[in-house]
Amino acid sequence: MKLFLKKLTPARIIVGYYMLAVTISVLMLRIPAVHLPGVEVSFIDSVFTAVSAVSVTGLTVVNISETYSVFGIFVLILIFQLGGIGVMTLGTFFWLLLGKKIGLKERQLIMVDQNQPNLSGLVNLMKDILKIILLIELLGTLILGVYFLKFYPDWKDAFLHGLFASISATTNAGFDITGQSLIPYANDYFVQLINIILITLGAIGFPVLIELKQFLMHRDNSRIFRFSLFAKLTSITFLALLVFGTIVILLLEWNHAFRGASWHESFFYALFQSATTRSSGLATIDVSTFSQATLIVMSGLMFIGASPSSVGGGIRTTTFALNILYLYHFANGNRHIKVFRRELHEDDIRKALAVTMLAFILCSVSLVVLSISETHSLLALLFEICSAFGTTGLSMGITPDLSTFGKCVIMLLMFIGRIGLPSFLFMIGGKEEKTKFHYPKERVIIG
Amino acid sequence: MKLFLKKLTPARIIVGYYMLAVTISVLMLRIPAVHLPGVEVSFIDSVFTAVSAVSVTGLTVVNISETYSVFGIFVLILIFQLGGIGVMTLGTFFWLLLGKKIGLKERQLIMVDQNQPNLSGLVNLMKDILKIILLIELLGTLILGVYFLKFYPDWKDAFLHGLFASISATTNAGFDITGQSLIPYANDYFVQLINIILITLGAIGFPVLIELKQFLMHRDNSRIFRFSLFAKLTSITFLALLVFGTIVILLLEWNHAFRGASWHESFFYALFQSATTRSSGLATIDVSTFSQATLIVMSGLMFIGASPSSVGGGIRTTTFALNILYLYHFANGNRHIKVFRRELHEDDIRKALAVTMLAFILCSVSLVVLSISETHSLLALLFEICSAFGTTGLSMGITPDLSTFGKCVIMLLMFIGRIGLPSFLFMIGGKEEKTKFHYPKERVIIG
Ligand SMILES: [K+]
Ligand SMILES: [K+]
Repeated sequence: MKLFLKKLTPARIIVGYYMLAVTISVLMLRIPAVHLPGVEVSFIDSVFTAVSAVSVTGLTVVNISETYSVFGIFVLILIFQLGGIGVMTLGTFFWLLLGKKIGLKERQLIMVDQNQPNLSGLVNLMKDILKIILLIELLGTLILGVYFLKFYPDWKDAFLHGLFASISATTNAGFDITGQSLIPYANDYFVQLINIILITLGAIGFPVLIELKQFLMHRDNSRIFRFSLFAKLTSITFLALLVFGTIVILLLEWNHAFRGASWHESFFYALFQSATTRSSGLATIDVSTFSQATLIVMSGLMFIGASPSSVGGGIRTTTFALNILYLYHFANGNRHIKVFRRELHEDDIRKALAVTMLAFILCSVSLVVLSISETHSLLALLFEICSAFGTTGLSMGITPDLSTFGKCVIMLLMFIGRIGLPSFLFMIGGKEEKTKFHYPKERVIIG
Repeated sequence: MKLFLKKLTPARIIVGYYMLAVTISVLMLRIPAVHLPGVEVSFIDSVFTAVSAVSVTGLTVVNISETYSVFGIFVLILIFQLGGIGVMTLGTFFWLLLGKKIGLKERQLIMVDQNQPNLSGLVNLMKDILKIILLIELLGTLILGVYFLKFYPDWKDAFLHGLFASISATTNAGFDITGQSLIPYANDYFVQLINIILITLGAIGFPVLIELKQFLMHRDNSRIFRFSLFAKLTSITFLALLVFGTIVILLLEWNHAFRGASWHESFFYALFQSATTRSSGLATIDVSTFSQATLIVMSGLMFIGASPSSVGGGIRTTTFALNILYLYHFANGNRHIKVFRRELHEDDIRKALAVTMLAFILCSVSLVVLSISETHSLLALLFEICSAFGTTGLSMGITPDLSTFGKCVIMLLMFIGRIGLPSFLFMIGGKEEKTKFHYPKERVIIG
């Protein structure tokens, strides 16, 4: 028993939790009542839907609204919560738990928890995570539900759509029951803005949310609140990616997919499709109409993915930021990376570089393997692979046509993208060495 | 004058030499006599041919045998020598010159030069490089010239073909005067083997050649000769890539492009096409008949390219090896990378990682940019870009169809690939810090 507990490393617990969630989800999705009358779904497609829902990716081999009953839709909502919120909560929990080992001083710099770092404090924190997310989802449901009364006179229909939309956005699941994502709301900027806010709250990472909460609560306190390096880094990267994506999509599609659209339509198309690459996968336009250049850029954005300890996937925004900082400081001949008056820990840089390279190898090997098993173009496969690894769920439309082997590869990518290469590497990273005197070092989460 | 000399950093000298070589080449290629009677070549195509020849890439927008006269062919041979051998000689020279600054002890570990490290010693070394390469080219010309008497009864024709083939292979220029690369020799394993040997001698890097020479000359000496870490690392990587490429191409094309070919034909197709990705660009089969998976793998091999201080391009074999070693040691939790009873210097690892990432960014941006300016598929563009950056010169056939802007992008990639991102980064890398006691550290060339 003691040996069993010793073998329960955080990575194993998260993987185990994920596996359990997939198994339960598959079993639930095999209940006949989840389907609409007369609809049959093959076993592999049920497994694919389960993996896609648990990893909150949103790639689908079936049309949800034509396949699943209202009961089935509630089952899906439950699965998003298990996958999105569950993995995020566990991930944050273990990050804090591991943080204890780093030493009191550094842990305090992480600034997430001001309390005594004991187990009951951590359990309270997990409860906090759940409360905050459920509150966000509830607010989203209310706002969207009331708004949807405009389209669905029956309040039950309106609130079912509101609930599904809110949870699908907040957990970044990206599933839809409209049959065509958010395309029906292409001109409804209110729905889009609410969605972008919910997506961002889910994808920006829980540590940021809790620091934000603390900041708001301590606002009138005389002591100056300091956001952690991690919160600053991840938020700025998140914003920078959003802006970069919006500008690039706008420029590249201005005379292409957006031809004939007004400037504000074009802007919202670009903004929403940029925001969605973080990890949501909802779309207000058929992305397969985009040009090759745009689709390559979006693949890159999906590969980067969302922030650590969030509902998203990919290599994570912090990992990307550390890569860029590394290159910038290397080009300037600086060995030590300083940012926001803090010095990054060398081990974090090493991890970020390794994670990025491994993710690149993973996706490249997938490209070669899928090129053998499928007949689709390199562009369509690249987009699908990055979408799966980033748990984004956008697709050029090839998902239902994948071979069973191809579906398995995509499922594996969704799994690794969701769990995160970093969380595995975090366990096996280098040993601590004697530190020299520098700027105060500060750890950031690689994933 | 003193200020001028001070600004003459090695990187600037190499870039300056390259620019000068291109200018001279363009001027020479504008002499009317270089063309066959009645043939006109546009200015941009002359520039493209010049850049392709100076960077020994071999991508062509014109058919050489139908465009250039015998005089023009000799001009091209001269340009390969300027580009292939010239840059290689200068590169090695500066590597040794910079080696002096590393300190006597470490410089001795590099083992390339046992003499007093003074400038005249270095000039002698440059002469040595030239002698060895010219000897290799002469031997290649004699062997191929005599052999070609079989096909060309006139000895002048036979030796012109022998000379061009030998120099095009040794400098890894990859140009051909057959009009269809080495496809006419698809069943002539002797010509292929000679070509593979010449390609390898040019691409394995000059430091390896000179160590090999010293090894052969000191064989009967009682003192045990020790190959440098660099020589071991680069040779083993070179061999490993050759074997890996051969196996993968053979497996992927066995039932595809090689269908109907005998096992030994298939094996030689795979072997030659694997060897050619190091940097030669000669081919014994039309690579556009290969499957998507094979072409992705070949793109990766071309991106890696040849060894440092050689006639090739790409990120270089050592850079690739250091990346792999980094990942392997990282996965095992080792911070210090030990290989062949030596420890790699941390700065070299940092450089290798930065070079790889920058090269990846460079090629990705090129992909997006060419996706905007050209109408070709992602696969064709990826292959072309990796071929240009690796100065390989293989193509799916899109080179002549590129827009003028597209040609400029490819020219820039050939230039950077040939000069090497590493040689720029070598100048701007991190400052030296106090060393602690470890295994004896040993420098390797990143590029
Ligand atoms: K998603
Ligand atoms: K070449």
